Amino acid sequence: MSILLAHGGGGVRMRRLVEDLFLPAFGDEELRKLDDSAVLGEIVFTTDAYVVKPLFFPGGNIGKLAVCGTVNDIAVMGAEPLYLSLAMIIEEGFSEEELERVSVSIGNTAKECGVRIVAGDTKVVERGKGDGLYIISAGIGQLKVPHRLSLDTIKPGDKVIINGGIGLHGVAVLIARGELGLSSKVESDCAGLWGLIEPLLSLGVRFMRDATRGGVGGVLTEVADGRDWGIKVFENKLPVPMEVKGVCEVLGFEPLYLANEGKVCVVVENGKEEDVLASMRSHPLGKDAVVIGEVVEDYPGKVVVETSFGTHRILEPPMGELLPRIC
Amino acid sequence: MSILLAHGGGGVRMRRLVEDLFLPAFGDEELRKLDDSAVLGEIVFTTDAYVVKPLFFPGGNIGKLAVCGTVNDIAVMGAEPLYLSLAMIIEEGFSEEELERVSVSIGNTAKECGVRIVAGDTKVVERGKGDGLYIISAGIGQLKVPHRLSLDTIKPGDKVIINGGIGLHGVAVLIARGELGLSSKVESDCAGLWGLIEPLLSLGVRFMRDATRGGVGGVLTEVADGRDWGIKVFENKLPVPMEVKGVCEVLGFEPLYLANEGKVCVVVENGKEEDVLASMRSHPLGKDAVVIGEVVEDYPGKVVVETSFGTHRILEPPMGELLPRIC
Repeated sequence: MSILLAHGGGGVRMRRLVEDLFLPAFGDEELRKLDDSAVLGEIVFTTDAYVVKPLFFPGGNIGKLAVCGTVNDIAVMGAEPLYLSLAMIIEEGFSEEELERVSVSIGNTAKECGVRIVAGDTKVVERGKGDGLYIISAGIGQLKVPHRLSLDTIKPGDKVIINGGIGLHGVAVLIARGELGLSSKVESDCAGLWGLIEPLLSLGVRFMRDATRGGVGGVLTEVADGRDWGIKVFENKLPVPMEVKGVCEVLGFEPLYLANEGKVCVVVENGKEEDVLASMRSHPLGKDAVVIGEVVEDYPGKVVVETSFGTHRILEPPMGELLPRIC
Repeated sequence: MSILLAHGGGGVRMRRLVEDLFLPAFGDEELRKLDDSAVLGEIVFTTDAYVVKPLFFPGGNIGKLAVCGTVNDIAVMGAEPLYLSLAMIIEEGFSEEELERVSVSIGNTAKECGVRIVAGDTKVVERGKGDGLYIISAGIGQLKVPHRLSLDTIKPGDKVIINGGIGLHGVAVLIARGELGLSSKVESDCAGLWGLIEPLLSLGVRFMRDATRGGVGGVLTEVADGRDWGIKVFENKLPVPMEVKGVCEVLGFEPLYLANEGKVCVVVENGKEEDVLASMRSHPLGKDAVVIGEVVEDYPGKVVVETSFGTHRILEPPMGELLPRIC
């Protein structure tokens, strides 16, 4: 057997690789939780490798992504992002000018997100053994909630909220690749979310996850997997921006599977959703926040989409084949 | 200008890239120290990308290297390595069987080193955009010394100690590449050093650094750079294993520039060297520990090698061209 692109797609194949190969070999109890960050006492710790193609796209670049992605993986644990490390794997012949543009963007994004880049490493590989630049970030944050936010606290009746339009990062990167023969004004939503998330921590939030590879559908199917409750998503509530809808209609994509880099799915205690929505909408990154679904007793372990026509369809976990190198 | 392989070699070119491009763009005060790990209150934090070629070599593989390298970068700060993250960038088509061998080695090495692997990420890139497998580790440790070990405490008269034979990793990897047309029984010295280092912390150690890319010569020239003292290295005291000497003679390599993955340079207060040597020699990874040099008032900012004939030559910092992808 050999590794396929789909093994890196954030879907079912990747999960199998992790569960069948990595966890038995070196999986610590904390790694087995498959959370966005490890919780180690009062600190959280996470890592992400960025191999996005192309390196520059409307709304961002690989450097901005590497900072925001790790900031968000920490933030969704209910922790304040503090310190980042960055490792770079550069292909021989890569332009110093592009490296500098990426680096300046890293510096600006780190400042905006309030994190310090304190450690780094640089490696160079021969031409044809890389693709310009790969960046790998790791991060440390400080837990700001008394207990780890856990799936175990979720109950039927809880609401699922998202902070705005979905699929923007996926569509922006796909169009920037130029392979689709489409043009569009879509910009990636790439952004650091700690400022949006921090005020929510005292408002009845049960669980959060940022919807990157695999999209909102990827997150929700993972969340529901193996539980004795399900998640119902209201299709007519889903904030799908017009440009994203257009691309999905032309190409047959499911917007729920498209990648985001500035969107968080929040599961909130029933009755607290208005407070959470109000807080989110007062922040620039949450002004289109909306309830998109709820936790239900029917469909245990599954995500079901209630269509605009009132019919129901089960949402399968993404397989990961669709969009390699989206982040 | 474009990036050269030498920019990743751990020598002068890499240092210029870091100082002229990365630090102005995103360098935090802590990053500017260019230590092996960042010191953040009581914790230390570090990252390293591993692109070694070939992936398997006598004495180790990329997985063992990724664990030991990060463990050692933490240990030399006087900190106990506790938690590791691992990100993998896998080339499409890479064999699952090899991935499993690497993963098992990661698990075993982590257990031996007493560290837990708590976070990870997996990305897959297309054929021809990687080279089988790159692994990027980051690590967190807990400081075990009351003050950061600092170059500023070094004084003339201090002794420089190494824990055993040099150049083994460099030679093992070069021979494993098969490009030299040489064969040899040399094995990489790849090992986690915390067990060796911990007892030294109460014995008058001023400063430590593991001698990886750029070798012992790379470490010592960096240590001496800009100081009002120099370092004298006694060539006839240098522990150069016979097989390493043989390869160096045939190919004209300087053993002081060859990479190690289980060797630490320790600067120790004058008069405390026997205690440190005794402690090191009681550990399996330090049984060949020896004083190889001393801090001197002459040659400020420089490293000078006293040859077996009593002559002196200035050791230049490695340029980084010699050995790409050694770790």
